[in-house]
Amino acid sequence: MSETRTLASYVVNSRYEDVPQDVRHEAARSLVNFMAVALGGSVDPAVDIAIRALAPFAGKPTASILGRVERMDPLHASLMNGISSHVDDFDDTTPQNYIHPTSPVASALFAYGSANRVSGRDFVHAFVLGFEAESRVGNAVFPAHYDAGWHITGTAGVFGAAAAIGRLRGLSVDRMVWALGLAATQAAGLREMFGSMGKAFHPGRAAQNGYASAILAEAGFTAGERGIDGPRGFAAVQAARFDLAQVTAGLGKDFNLRRNTYKPFPCGIVNHPTIEACIRIHDEHRIAPADVRAVRLRVAPLVLDLCNQQDITRGLQGKFSVYHGAAVGLVRGRAGLDEYTDAAVNDPDVKRVRERATATGDPSLTADQAHVEVEVADGRRLTWFVEQSLGNIHRPLSDGELDEKFRRTAVRALPSNAVDIALDLCWRIDRLEDVGVLVDATVPAVQRA
Amino acid sequence: MSETRTLASYVVNSRYEDVPQDVRHEAARSLVNFMAVALGGSVDPAVDIAIRALAPFAGKPTASILGRVERMDPLHASLMNGISSHVDDFDDTTPQNYIHPTSPVASALFAYGSANRVSGRDFVHAFVLGFEAESRVGNAVFPAHYDAGWHITGTAGVFGAAAAIGRLRGLSVDRMVWALGLAATQAAGLREMFGSMGKAFHPGRAAQNGYASAILAEAGFTAGERGIDGPRGFAAVQAARFDLAQVTAGLGKDFNLRRNTYKPFPCGIVNHPTIEACIRIHDEHRIAPADVRAVRLRVAPLVLDLCNQQDITRGLQGKFSVYHGAAVGLVRGRAGLDEYTDAAVNDPDVKRVRERATATGDPSLTADQAHVEVEVADGRRLTWFVEQSLGNIHRPLSDGELDEKFRRTAVRALPSNAVDIALDLCWRIDRLEDVGVLVDATVPAVQRA
Repeated sequence: MSETRTLASYVVNSRYEDVPQDVRHEAARSLVNFMAVALGGSVDPAVDIAIRALAPFAGKPTASILGRVERMDPLHASLMNGISSHVDDFDDTTPQNYIHPTSPVASALFAYGSANRVSGRDFVHAFVLGFEAESRVGNAVFPAHYDAGWHITGTAGVFGAAAAIGRLRGLSVDRMVWALGLAATQAAGLREMFGSMGKAFHPGRAAQNGYASAILAEAGFTAGERGIDGPRGFAAVQAARFDLAQVTAGLGKDFNLRRNTYKPFPCGIVNHPTIEACIRIHDEHRIAPADVRAVRLRVAPLVLDLCNQQDITRGLQGKFSVYHGAAVGLVRGRAGLDEYTDAAVNDPDVKRVRERATATGDPSLTADQAHVEVEVADGRRLTWFVEQSLGNIHRPLSDGELDEKFRRTAVRALPSNAVDIALDLCWRIDRLEDVGVLVDATVPAVQRA
Repeated sequence: MSETRTLASYVVNSRYEDVPQDVRHEAARSLVNFMAVALGGSVDPAVDIAIRALAPFAGKPTASILGRVERMDPLHASLMNGISSHVDDFDDTTPQNYIHPTSPVASALFAYGSANRVSGRDFVHAFVLGFEAESRVGNAVFPAHYDAGWHITGTAGVFGAAAAIGRLRGLSVDRMVWALGLAATQAAGLREMFGSMGKAFHPGRAAQNGYASAILAEAGFTAGERGIDGPRGFAAVQAARFDLAQVTAGLGKDFNLRRNTYKPFPCGIVNHPTIEACIRIHDEHRIAPADVRAVRLRVAPLVLDLCNQQDITRGLQGKFSVYHGAAVGLVRGRAGLDEYTDAAVNDPDVKRVRERATATGDPSLTADQAHVEVEVADGRRLTWFVEQSLGNIHRPLSDGELDEKFRRTAVRALPSNAVDIALDLCWRIDRLEDVGVLVDATVPAVQRA
């Protein structure tokens, strides 16, 4: 049996009883984190523009868009949810394949669950299966596929959305094979878009196209039978090296959700240990910005490849500047969405400290480690070393830290009492009779009134 | 200036006066051929299924779908036009890059021209520019890109649709660069889908996604600046070898439209010389099927790689069987859409002759040549050699032959008096005040009444 069919068969035949309790809990954590960043990102101009541009083409407004008053058809809602949840670079990451995995799958599922009655149990099950499909396809082609320039969140994500929606639609194995084939033939997204709105477009389009793949396959629209593994299928065409065994090995036993990680800070993940060290120094010493004479960073050389911008003026640039991360950590003692606005990047105190920062690449450090030394006007040298970055697989955010992230982030779109209601519903998602209740709870009051 | 920006600048600044008369006429020929095959394909089950599946998601029905009574939003209409015009494998081909070039561009343009008032002159100009954008991107990555398994009609086509719609929307150069970037990051379509409806989905999705790229860019949705030529752009990521000079060399002087070709028969193009030889023998000798003792084909070895199926039961398989092509040529003296139905493939006379056919690969022949020998019951051996295949660049279909193709094909969707009206409007397209008149003329009467 081809890998495409084996995967399709698993997605169709899996039983929720066979999903272990720890995986179910990690699913809830992923969805709490997703909802936090989707709500936080829903106010971004990229979402405003996409809604304004595509509204004239959108169908019957049967689906809510997370955090927005506008409604659209579920395919367009999937796209908008995907943009919202990735635009702040604050969503989750599976380090083994660089995928930001929840956005493509959950963006489609919440659009579907808004327009259709879906139980929380079925929703979480479909999410686990979509996550698994996407991760396994990604594992099979990583790293050659990513290294070649593909934004794997988009390319692998479309398989996850197709599998998740196909599962909820009750596709047969034959039609699930077609759904995965139609996903394969839409797998797209180039890293050349990084630094533009095009990056966040990728998981959105993956969600939308995966959803459409399932709907088309359900109606009998045929596709190649070996979309993932065929001689001209996704793996062979889009990766110089690949290992199809990764698609099927340990299926139903080894859940990729167990390897999901959540960012404490909305920026390039390699900046995280530096930011944390600076926050620790801030909390302990509360140095006035004017008293900072020098900030010396020792980081993995990779950090300087990816995040070496110092002379910056825009919030988006700040996400890829280790100096900016250090500065907000030292000046403000935090690095939330408010620290990556244009205003924050141009804040004179932050700017002053950022300009006093220097960084050295140290091959003995991993990308999860950083050493920071701050030289103060009075001559003191304050240091901190982070051994394992907060939020990585060895030091995961606790449920309480996810709560905190949710409250700080979602409040951009919702008043704080509504934030608490949405957060509570997220944690209880697999006990909801209708996930639509959660989606409704994310819509700003002006609409609900 | 990057190749992406140079191309964008050309598309934005080109003047219709600078498009030579012969190119304008070839544009009309391409559009006549396109409309023929789109109308012929509009009755295909793939189109029925796609419309039925996606109707619940479609927006305000402001656009007609060629040959159909249903209306949808222009993005979905683009998709449907693209499926219709490619599903019969009867659309045009530029041999230098294997692209079927008109479908992705014209599918979007006719959807746009149905929902918006566009003069024929502006329409043809946008078509020429879209064709050029798509062809040049394709030329830059061919053959490595196609050989790797990409269906280049989909991957290059999205650039053509973005350029054409972006031109009609009057994008600035900066926004045209984004439109091409958003096209690049949606370039998709795997040859693994060949033999399924997924193949025809490619130009449809290219039309739809290119259209959306232009609309998003117009609204200010940003993309990478070097979608085609950047280090992680389309060419570098999706082709092992590429030549970016092809994107810009001779821009405004060398028009790819001049190299477009039109199929006389709705099947794999390498079967064409065999079919023609068999039709000649049929016309001259009118052998009864029962009197055919043997059919011996000498063809380029490539034909046996691509079209070596003899034991077939479905119309779609017949398109890729040189034996079936020979049989319908000898038995019916023609090879139109009616010769590639399931019924035709199972017609006892056709089947009998097909089973008596054998083929030999002859390296001295090109794919445009074929030698046929028919051995008759009375012992005669009838032969014909085709030196240049009808419809290839050296023996193009005449305008009259395109008329004939149009009438035979479009009649599947329209009564013959309506066919003549649509054909006349197609030839006069660049003198129409509003292309919507032509689109209206393709809608079956039940709707117009």
